[in-house]
Amino acid sequence: MGRPMSKPDDGESAEDRLIARYFRPLATHPGAFALGDDAAAIAPPPGCDVVLTTDGVIGGVHFFADDPPEAVAKKALRINLSDLAAKGAKPLGFLMSLALPATISPDWLENFARGLGEDAAAYGCPLLGGDTDQSPGAVTVHIAALGALPHGTMVRRSGARPGDAIVVTGTIGDAALGLLLRQGGGAGAAGWWLDAGMRAHLAGRYLLPQPRTALAEALRRHASAAIDISDGLAGDIGKLARASGVCADVAVEAVPLSAAARAVLAAEPALIETMLTGGDDFEIVATLAPGEVEALRAQAASARVALTAIGTIAAAEPGAGMGARFRAADGRVLAFKRPSYSHF
Amino acid sequence: MGRPMSKPDDGESAEDRLIARYFRPLATHPGAFALGDDAAAIAPPPGCDVVLTTDGVIGGVHFFADDPPEAVAKKALRINLSDLAAKGAKPLGFLMSLALPATISPDWLENFARGLGEDAAAYGCPLLGGDTDQSPGAVTVHIAALGALPHGTMVRRSGARPGDAIVVTGTIGDAALGLLLRQGGGAGAAGWWLDAGMRAHLAGRYLLPQPRTALAEALRRHASAAIDISDGLAGDIGKLARASGVCADVAVEAVPLSAAARAVLAAEPALIETMLTGGDDFEIVATLAPGEVEALRAQAASARVALTAIGTIAAAEPGAGMGARFRAADGRVLAFKRPSYSHF
Repeated sequence: MGRPMSKPDDGESAEDRLIARYFRPLATHPGAFALGDDAAAIAPPPGCDVVLTTDGVIGGVHFFADDPPEAVAKKALRINLSDLAAKGAKPLGFLMSLALPATISPDWLENFARGLGEDAAAYGCPLLGGDTDQSPGAVTVHIAALGALPHGTMVRRSGARPGDAIVVTGTIGDAALGLLLRQGGGAGAAGWWLDAGMRAHLAGRYLLPQPRTALAEALRRHASAAIDISDGLAGDIGKLARASGVCADVAVEAVPLSAAARAVLAAEPALIETMLTGGDDFEIVATLAPGEVEALRAQAASARVALTAIGTIAAAEPGAGMGARFRAADGRVLAFKRPSYSHF
Repeated sequence: MGRPMSKPDDGESAEDRLIARYFRPLATHPGAFALGDDAAAIAPPPGCDVVLTTDGVIGGVHFFADDPPEAVAKKALRINLSDLAAKGAKPLGFLMSLALPATISPDWLENFARGLGEDAAAYGCPLLGGDTDQSPGAVTVHIAALGALPHGTMVRRSGARPGDAIVVTGTIGDAALGLLLRQGGGAGAAGWWLDAGMRAHLAGRYLLPQPRTALAEALRRHASAAIDISDGLAGDIGKLARASGVCADVAVEAVPLSAAARAVLAAEPALIETMLTGGDDFEIVATLAPGEVEALRAQAASARVALTAIGTIAAAEPGAGMGARFRAADGRVLAFKRPSYSHF
């Protein structure tokens, strides 16, 4: 006390400098005020609803401590972009809460911020604001993402109707198999006989989701219901069906699989359950009237997103319940030990 | 596999049930879809900007593991409401990311949800959506809050002008002293001679912030700049001054103190630094043209929020830098070892 203030930036803390150095360059939206205020202010497009979702990743739970930091950043943002896409919303921006152990290196932070900035630019989803804390444990990244769409047009889980077709983007099960590989190969991975390209494909699908942002508007125009697949196809189509009061009939042999996943399944057929229930696909399963399928397929093709019909929505049968029935080629209905990933 | 689906809610996970039981009752906004979808959709009031802020609390960093769960929930929401209030925004709702250790008890969760629901109702800020994860470490609660205000009227940090008065709500330093008490009393707390009521006052001010939501609209009408005090009065007024390109002259003896804080200061005068820099006050420091002070004071009085003038904004002097100067009664300018709380 009694010492006069010494220099113009005397009051800038290390936290301020961290934010200014790594994250200010990502705050390109004028309403983010270059992260120089307590809050952001955005004017949503007139006549639009703001669509809001939040999802986080925690080191040791959703990613491995030695995953590349740029991939951690991208995964955190993309799992939120996947939700916006499934709901038919165009990204507006995001808020991020970042908790970092004191031991984090400048290198890690620089690569994390670079990855985040690349995706913010690629998906047109700028950083609007955030919060940085010291974490007593793992790195945690919580993102709240905002999107916009014309008032009242959000694609709900609850709009599926008997007779609707069920379609899914991309391929299913890759990420669950990639996680098994990453965890050391699983029980039989040595017998999967995968070549290096297939292993890299599966590992990459776990590491880095591909949100189907390019399909958002088409889903809004054509889908009766949609959900992104974060907890496994079986569990998530079940949620959609229950929300809609219907039953989803899925033909297991129609579920689109990558070449790598087909190779694994040929070696270890029981893994079909892991592939249908493991989660982290971040594909979209949607329902739509049969007459809308061709239009959606055409738009998916021009967006270069694979789209596959996998089943049909049926009326819920009294007593038989609502949900999803996965039918094998021989007509058996599969039952799963754990239909959906759950944290509890 | 091969077992038919057994009951209607077969696919509901423990996570779904946790959300349905504890948090669905808080999702009173129609756009939250009773937490039954992947995202919320809200229509902001026409002509309004959406104001966005995010802040979190981490067990062992921002609260103690044995703090009452209802207070943890309220603190997590209130620190965000405090940001909205300082910016002049009316709450619209919030998203919450909750990470819980597997050992959390139903009792803890029930009380957490009850506290959160009480505040969501009291502040008119409903739960819009969220995300629940298992935490490998402490309980962490990250909230992103949304507010609304007429387009372009967010109260910025950067609007302070030479000649403006500086005012602050409530009292300063209580929470920092409350934290010292909570940590075991600090070096000299036994000599503070506080009665039980004073100890409870200080402890309560650390445990449970009082966001100045009632003053938001008045600040929007009258303030040239404002910031909520989370990292300490000295650091936060310094941020405001630097953002405005001015110097804040604060008279230390004018800073409003509670009776408990005055008692502590009488016993241990050096604690003035802790009180001015310790943070967690969640009061608002604002600047305004001298002609606006009476109007703001009247509105603060009718909202039953104490408002005290503590200084004046001066032009930044070339070479002397921008920021805040805290002047003691004898004219000395105080210097602080650490003007502001920083996580790094």
